Amino acid sequence: MEVVVDHLADERNKAQFDVDAMKIVWAGSQHDFNVTDRMSRLVASDPAFSKDGRTMLGRKELVKNTLRKAAHAWKRIIELRLSEEEANKLRNFVDEPAFTDLHWGMFIPAIKGQGTDEQQQKWLPLAFKMQIIGCYAQTELGHGSNVQGLETTATFDPLTDEFIIHSPTLTSSKWWPGGLGKVSTHAVVYARLLTDGQEHGVHGFIVQLRSLDDHSPLPGITVGDIGMKFGNGAYNTMDNGVLQFDHVRIPRNQMLMRVSQITREGKVTQSDVPRQLVYGTMVYVRQTIVADASCALSRAVCIATRYSAVRRQFGSQNGGPETQVIDYKTQQSRLFPLLATAYAYRFVGEWLKWLYTDVTQRLQANDFSTLPEAHACTAGLKSLTTSTTALFPDMASGAVTDSTFPLFAIQSEDGIEECRKLCGGHGYLCSSGLPELFAVYVPACTYEGDNVVLLLQILVDISVMKLTHPGNFNSIPLASSISMFLLQSNPKSFPGLLGVARFLMKTVSQLGSGKNPVGTTSYMGRIEHLMQCQCDVQRAEDWVKPSVILEAFEARACRMSVACARNISKLPSQEEGFTELSSDLAEAAVAHCQLIVVSKFIEKLQQDIPGKGVKEQLQLLCGIYALFLVHKYQGDFLSTGSITPKQASLVNDQLRSLYAQLRPNAISLVDAFNYTDHYLGSVLGRYDGNVYPNLYNEAWKDPLNDSVVPDGYHEYIYPMLKQQLRNARL
Amino acid sequence: MEVVVDHLADERNKAQFDVDAMKIVWAGSQHDFNVTDRMSRLVASDPAFSKDGRTMLGRKELVKNTLRKAAHAWKRIIELRLSEEEANKLRNFVDEPAFTDLHWGMFIPAIKGQGTDEQQQKWLPLAFKMQIIGCYAQTELGHGSNVQGLETTATFDPLTDEFIIHSPTLTSSKWWPGGLGKVSTHAVVYARLLTDGQEHGVHGFIVQLRSLDDHSPLPGITVGDIGMKFGNGAYNTMDNGVLQFDHVRIPRNQMLMRVSQITREGKVTQSDVPRQLVYGTMVYVRQTIVADASCALSRAVCIATRYSAVRRQFGSQNGGPETQVIDYKTQQSRLFPLLATAYAYRFVGEWLKWLYTDVTQRLQANDFSTLPEAHACTAGLKSLTTSTTALFPDMASGAVTDSTFPLFAIQSEDGIEECRKLCGGHGYLCSSGLPELFAVYVPACTYEGDNVVLLLQILVDISVMKLTHPGNFNSIPLASSISMFLLQSNPKSFPGLLGVARFLMKTVSQLGSGKNPVGTTSYMGRIEHLMQCQCDVQRAEDWVKPSVILEAFEARACRMSVACARNISKLPSQEEGFTELSSDLAEAAVAHCQLIVVSKFIEKLQQDIPGKGVKEQLQLLCGIYALFLVHKYQGDFLSTGSITPKQASLVNDQLRSLYAQLRPNAISLVDAFNYTDHYLGSVLGRYDGNVYPNLYNEAWKDPLNDSVVPDGYHEYIYPMLKQQLRNARL
Ligand SMILES: Cc1cc2nc3c(=O)[nH]c(=O)nc-3n(C[C@H](O)[C@H](O)[C@H](O)COP(=O)(O)OP(=O)(O)OC[C@H]3O[C@@H](n4cnc5c(N)ncnc54)[C@H](O)[C@@H]3O)c2cc1C
Ligand SMILES: Cc1cc2nc3c(=O)[nH]c(=O)nc-3n(C[C@H](O)[C@H](O)[C@H](O)COP(=O)(O)OP(=O)(O)OC[C@H]3O[C@@H](n4cnc5c(N)ncnc54)[C@H](O)[C@@H]3O)c2cc1C
Ligand SMILES: [Ca+2]
Repeated sequence: MEVVVDHLADERNKAQFDVDAMKIVWAGSQHDFNVTDRMSRLVASDPAFSKDGRTMLGRKELVKNTLRKAAHAWKRIIELRLSEEEANKLRNFVDEPAFTDLHWGMFIPAIKGQGTDEQQQKWLPLAFKMQIIGCYAQTELGHGSNVQGLETTATFDPLTDEFIIHSPTLTSSKWWPGGLGKVSTHAVVYARLLTDGQEHGVHGFIVQLRSLDDHSPLPGITVGDIGMKFGNGAYNTMDNGVLQFDHVRIPRNQMLMRVSQITREGKVTQSDVPRQLVYGTMVYVRQTIVADASCALSRAVCIATRYSAVRRQFGSQNGGPETQVIDYKTQQSRLFPLLATAYAYRFVGEWLKWLYTDVTQRLQANDFSTLPEAHACTAGLKSLTTSTTALFPDMASGAVTDSTFPLFAIQSEDGIEECRKLCGGHGYLCSSGLPELFAVYVPACTYEGDNVVLLLQILVDISVMKLTHPGNFNSIPLASSISMFLLQSNPKSFPGLLGVARFLMKTVSQLGSGKNPVGTTSYMGRIEHLMQCQCDVQRAEDWVKPSVILEAFEARACRMSVACARNISKLPSQEEGFTELSSDLAEAAVAHCQLIVVSKFIEKLQQDIPGKGVKEQLQLLCGIYALFLVHKYQGDFLSTGSITPKQASLVNDQLRSLYAQLRPNAISLVDAFNYTDHYLGSVLGRYDGNVYPNLYNEAWKDPLNDSVVPDGYHEYIYPMLKQQLRNARL
Repeated sequence: MEVVVDHLADERNKAQFDVDAMKIVWAGSQHDFNVTDRMSRLVASDPAFSKDGRTMLGRKELVKNTLRKAAHAWKRIIELRLSEEEANKLRNFVDEPAFTDLHWGMFIPAIKGQGTDEQQQKWLPLAFKMQIIGCYAQTELGHGSNVQGLETTATFDPLTDEFIIHSPTLTSSKWWPGGLGKVSTHAVVYARLLTDGQEHGVHGFIVQLRSLDDHSPLPGITVGDIGMKFGNGAYNTMDNGVLQFDHVRIPRNQMLMRVSQITREGKVTQSDVPRQLVYGTMVYVRQTIVADASCALSRAVCIATRYSAVRRQFGSQNGGPETQVIDYKTQQSRLFPLLATAYAYRFVGEWLKWLYTDVTQRLQANDFSTLPEAHACTAGLKSLTTSTTALFPDMASGAVTDSTFPLFAIQSEDGIEECRKLCGGHGYLCSSGLPELFAVYVPACTYEGDNVVLLLQILVDISVMKLTHPGNFNSIPLASSISMFLLQSNPKSFPGLLGVARFLMKTVSQLGSGKNPVGTTSYMGRIEHLMQCQCDVQRAEDWVKPSVILEAFEARACRMSVACARNISKLPSQEEGFTELSSDLAEAAVAHCQLIVVSKFIEKLQQDIPGKGVKEQLQLLCGIYALFLVHKYQGDFLSTGSITPKQASLVNDQLRSLYAQLRPNAISLVDAFNYTDHYLGSVLGRYDGNVYPNLYNEAWKDPLNDSVVPDGYHEYIYPMLKQQLRNARL
């Protein structure tokens, strides 16, 4: 019998809180915990889902292997009669990007959101049973973020009652859609609608791509894979594709017509379908981004934390063991803020989820009129008119681009890289799991995030912008969700931040007008106080108070917005101001968004949280998250006078003390994520901490070790050693 | 005849300076330009060096392909009778990590530095002709940065006059050495010397690993590859290896004995060989790191800049062309500082190179006594005693770890990732060249940098630490070179920064003692002024003055060091202070290092620089580099009162104006790098800007496109579509 030794048992014994209770907190609820736990174990224990060797597979074998897993997952889902929730979780734990992500995550939602009832009735059952497989074909070689620039055309031919889908240029080739390259039978294709020589903007069309009999591309369709992407294994399991149409004909009823319709005669009209329902679709896809970001970051943090406790380097006294690297202050000051960030993102995601579920339910129940009031205090749903006008002009002009959403993601991505570095040399091995986590996360979140935004943009363009009563459309949830993604990354990086910035500028400009800002901008209502208040931290411990932290973040955010508004007003026109000051505006938006995350973490702590010591740990994490931001962005806090240099230096003192308090709980705090070794896919992050023998064994599996003497020895190495290269043909 | 259209011709016509003259500046000299240009073209025009398809190769084929290229390179080097300089450049432009890097870059230097004259005479000619191939085997599974913790033993057996090399534990397995896994016939192996039951620290031994006849591992040797690493192609062309010894015997004269000797009887003694010569070896390897960092960053910047001029998105007016994304302010504020950083690193590298060449020449000419004075004003070689004591205790205690050097590298690495993001979705494709540049650079610089430091550490441990007259060993060059690498990355990231910090603390503490700090710390001599001076910037344009910039950086660095020294003095002991305040100390060290880079850029501008408009462009870049840092680190500048909030905001204004001035020159500034399309290896970065057709053609080369219907269709997709999975065996 194999004896399993827990090399991290000492660490686990140190924990000052109830880990099982924390697991429930992390999962969200007992129910969520149960489902997640069951599905992750189901996958982990099934050899068909083994991840072994996947970073060593050639492209063809890799994709084939993914097809096998997707089929197996679907088989299990059917056999076990899993619910939608369970099926999603199961697919998630299979943990390989696959065509099914796009089928369930983009194709079906697009039909749900943009299809008429008849279209839904026709297509959704086929899709739900996977009798057809669909992808989402929007991006082209020449156009990604600018959807209105797409070149693919859909020309209505009244003679045959068909659309002719065509790619008029090389740059109009569809390019990137996941699942397109080799698998999908159908796609939602976005194209410019042309009828009678007139242009009617970009619309979605359901187009069959491949024969359902033998999978060969239908006439007029050229389709293939766009080639290797960043990383080993990683996103190369996905068949991102290229697609060209040569006058492909589809019936008129395959244009998605929930919002715009085209008649038999080729007349384009707008429906009066309630916009609230369209909005529901957005909700569905958007939540996954937050979940992905906190998830990917927490996986990396789990690996780096466990390995930091296993790894010992330097500091041996009298021949005793060396110091665990997690005990070095420098290691702590890099690792613990990431651990805190993982928790912070988790809670903000949870809040978002609650917000949307609630809003969607009310919308669907037609409980629309009372909605704004109901949510005014908690979520700021009241200021709908402001936000509509503040956000949507940007959407139309393109200033709110795809880049808006992924700020959140990028932060996680950088966090993953930092975790890799924290593992020293071994983090660079694929067997550490970190390279693949990084490479796969870049698109899985950043670019799928983009897709979601693009989907939103389409919806907004074709429906919301044309609302006759913009006041009726409640867009604050949209505004706050966008904010959610705009966290603490490089503030200059994201043109999309300008969308939030515009919203903030609008809020500032209306402050005098009697309209009180609500929801996430409600702090601006206390502008007079926030412009002149002084932080009264005198000793490091004062920084522990949530009210002190919150006020510092509010003062900073408020003052940065006001400074931007002032500077814009000095320039000839507002548009010029936005262009010239875009970097400053983006930084103000970041400040606003960080405030939201900090405040949601603080709100979480005001709830009842059961379990010995659990709340105390969360308080520690909240303090670390907030003060780490204060330190990292001290330039903002100091230049706005929100804190003094002395107080900034007390932040460092307090952080050091919080790190010391966190230290004994670090391993248990990552155990609380409840990740299986299968899911982590990392030798360094193994639950039992038994790193070295496993690292060693993994090495020998490389195909290069099939033979002792490598291929090429006789042709290249031997002649070199023997000075016989001169005559060699190389 | 094929007509080549230059899609970037308009951009090139805009340039306001003489690009050819700038090429010489970038290369360093006319001579450097000529050699570099010739070698890069030689490689680019030789089909045997084609990079096509390398990201798609399986591991075995990839390594075999690299063996072929290495053999071909060596053949060409011999045929063309290339000089060492030319051969190095040629290998560099082949641009694939290979065993030859370690052979020339670590194995030979180790023998040169640590071997006796006889040992050098025996081994170097074999190595120079590649009759043996060597690697550098130091790191073990359990120990990387802590060299003194290595577990491999070399026990002297006086009976046979041999050493017994042995791996007593799993964690003592050598792990990581490049070229070890499949290729090297020999290695310099680091092991603890044991004789007569006594331990004598870690030493280097030349050990043959494989038969020169058939390449099979010699008896007692287990050797293999450690498996896949981060990225496609990338560093997987290298056979990083694992190695275990089972009582392997080697003759006594294969211990590298320049510094320590072991007699026939097993007595260990120290030689009196001049340490200065040992020092020469360090110089050789160290320069390559700086070169690598500026090189990798500049390649990424070149790709992102050209593509940003090609890519158009949004902003079409009346059906005209869309806006080039390089014209967006947000794009500029991310891209142009990286362009400026590439130039800044280039010049600091050039200065370092000059410094070392000069110092080494003097050392070798035994011009040792006058050296300190000769360099006092330019390079600060005078304060040798301070620096010896300030730096070396850390080396011994391990506080100056491997991580000291690569700060510079990490910064470039982050820059590469940022360039990838600046290319939108297409940057994620391997054909953009950016993923591979990133993945390959992480180790090529970060970890090879580590190796170099490890080599230094060994040298320092076994020679310098045992100096009877430490005052005679001039270590300031070492100190400044370490500083060089500590640039603008996350200040918390690097425990090794503490080495520099200790040096700074020592400098501060001696300020009252009449010793005037010189060289890179000479500004500290003006401490009284710097502690109270006030920046007198009143308008944005004032930020253009080099003297103003320099003083701000000096004040910030000085004040941060002084603050650390004060805080340390408040704690019970100095050691405790260093541990507790390590993050603050690291930030002070970063401030010091950034000052050096800025000041070297400014010094460069005081030289005569021929060529129309060339100096003006460099002034622009210098301003952007420095002010970007002021903005990014405004927290430091503000908290030390080195500038006011108002002045911080004027920095932003000035940056905007500098970006606008740089814009028309951007493409020509990256053209000045003189990189061939082969070297860039990027469809997005093509010289002619003809991106789209080439991106499209690349896609079809993926093996997945060999067949229209993918492998696995019949087994997995068809049964899924037809609801026949239930009975499938998956
Ligand atoms: C792995 C992956 C999977 C994908 N899956 C799909 C899919 O399934 N279906 C699909 O349709 N698409 C998909 N995409 C495409 C994806 O949505 C786009 O790549 C994404 O929208 C980015 O657009 P882009 O590449 O055109 O970037 P660009 O817009 O070309 O960005 C280039 C640079 O220009 C800047 N920029 C652009 N516009 C502005 C502006 N107005 N102001 C300031 N700066 C600006 C950007 O910030 C960026 O720095 C996928 C992409 C990837 C990488
Ligand atoms: C691609 C590649 C090629 C390589 N090639 C070679 C080669 O040819 N030959 C060879 O011998 N080796 C080679 N190496 C090994 C390389 O030199 C080591 O990986 C490197 O020295 C890092 O050491 P480590 O992995 O032990 O990191 P660790 O020391 O384990 O670092 C882990 C973490 O602990 C922290 N830490 C460690 N010590 C301290 C301390 N005292 N204070 C504070 N924090 C600390 C580190 O900062 C890091 O965050 C290579 C590595 C790679 C990745
Ligand atoms: Ca990064």
